[in-house]
Amino acid sequence: MAKKKPVRKTVKATPKKKNSGNTKPAEERPVILITNDDGIMAPGIMNLVEAVKDLGKIIVVAPDKPQSGMGHAITIGHPLRLQKVNVFGDIEAYSCTGTPVDCVKLAVDKILHRKPDLCLSGINHGANHSINVIYSGTMSAAVEAAIESIPSAGFSLLDYSIEADFSGARKYARIIVKKMLETPQDKHTVLNVNFPPLPPDHLKGIMVCRQAYAKYEEDFMERLDPHGRKYYWLTGEFVNFDKGKDTDVWALANGYVSVVPVQFDLTHYDLKAKLEKLWK
Amino acid sequence: MAKKKPVRKTVKATPKKKNSGNTKPAEERPVILITNDDGIMAPGIMNLVEAVKDLGKIIVVAPDKPQSGMGHAITIGHPLRLQKVNVFGDIEAYSCTGTPVDCVKLAVDKILHRKPDLCLSGINHGANHSINVIYSGTMSAAVEAAIESIPSAGFSLLDYSIEADFSGARKYARIIVKKMLETPQDKHTVLNVNFPPLPPDHLKGIMVCRQAYAKYEEDFMERLDPHGRKYYWLTGEFVNFDKGKDTDVWALANGYVSVVPVQFDLTHYDLKAKLEKLWK
Repeated sequence: MAKKKPVRKTVKATPKKKNSGNTKPAEERPVILITNDDGIMAPGIMNLVEAVKDLGKIIVVAPDKPQSGMGHAITIGHPLRLQKVNVFGDIEAYSCTGTPVDCVKLAVDKILHRKPDLCLSGINHGANHSINVIYSGTMSAAVEAAIESIPSAGFSLLDYSIEADFSGARKYARIIVKKMLETPQDKHTVLNVNFPPLPPDHLKGIMVCRQAYAKYEEDFMERLDPHGRKYYWLTGEFVNFDKGKDTDVWALANGYVSVVPVQFDLTHYDLKAKLEKLWK
Repeated sequence: MAKKKPVRKTVKATPKKKNSGNTKPAEERPVILITNDDGIMAPGIMNLVEAVKDLGKIIVVAPDKPQSGMGHAITIGHPLRLQKVNVFGDIEAYSCTGTPVDCVKLAVDKILHRKPDLCLSGINHGANHSINVIYSGTMSAAVEAAIESIPSAGFSLLDYSIEADFSGARKYARIIVKKMLETPQDKHTVLNVNFPPLPPDHLKGIMVCRQAYAKYEEDFMERLDPHGRKYYWLTGEFVNFDKGKDTDVWALANGYVSVVPVQFDLTHYDLKAKLEKLWK
């Protein structure tokens, strides 16, 4: 599970055309798949495309509608559609009727017909730190890519607003993507990157962290419909149970961009060792 | 994150009525929440209720329709409804319009008004070993419970058929639930339990395992609708990349009930240590 490969694919064939200027021939540029969970029209994905579009050949495949909170959902019971759209200028882009995870699967199998060199997801409108990584469609798309042996990163800004200022997020998303392209990555790498809602010159830098044990305490709002029947809206209060200074929640509260490397082997090895003794 | 508490809640008040026979007073019995992702009418959940109904006070809250592949999806954009239903005889049961994770959240906040002592999910029609743990609504419900500090287990049978034989699964689900009730559990315990499709006397016993690196290789089926437009169905071939004899896939192929303890701290600590050096 831990073979290294450089993200930047090296094509050994000599370019046939002379390469004038600083643009590499298309076949030498890394292929970067971009998706999100807020939908293809969200400002966050526009900002991510703008931040990295000169770093590789970009393909966008993103949901046609918001898919927040979809986690690692896939579509089994009905078919999916893709629609080529023109929303990022010259960049090839498709909207998809499925979930963020469906977008990654379909992009690889039916659009790219190969694994991209990198997959990026976001920039999400709202935090995906701590336990949110599990509920997040943004992060699940990135995790799906890593399962498929495509190094990936999900990006989220701690601002739900549609008019959020993405300038700090853009600066650091670009720095992180360049780092990923310039150094060999384990093919199962997934980074969960969150940005405090600060302008670029107020951000203190990048902090590599662990996932905080912090979560929402649910409190459903109960209402009556016009026919007198109850219905419930999910609400909740965010509570941090984790006092560590090495967590994503701490980093974000202190002005750092948090980077949590994520795994998809969910085995709890300590508990496994205990149960092997207890259940003999 | 690792405080121990006994699953069986001890209520110290002396029972007011004399307890004749072997049934404990209701207030001393552990409260067991049961859910699934195949929907409240699926044979799998009926079999799980039957297997454990005398081990505690059972409450069922399950989706009103199949929710396979929903992963850890939650419902944010629209409200949820609960409907009291009479499908398990004397046992209190509700169908819910949401996902399996929604069912757990709603059950705790609006039905039980307390944390149950144990949460069980399944028995799923179909395998949730290896990477399936990430896509599975059955397992996500169990993981949600553990996030909420409720020890839990998800159960799945390697047979998708609606007429599947659950007799072996029932026998071992009961054994495992008894083990969980009889020994103190970490409040964040989640067990991913899978059963080979074998009758009780052909099962070799329980094997505590790690999650195999095995996954589906996607291959979408492309079709044309009556208007000539393309649509795609998710299909795929299961491939095991993991040759270990300590995995859930190995256990199941060799006639054992597989038990993988699951964690929800997704931090990849090895990669975190590497990045801390590399990105300094």
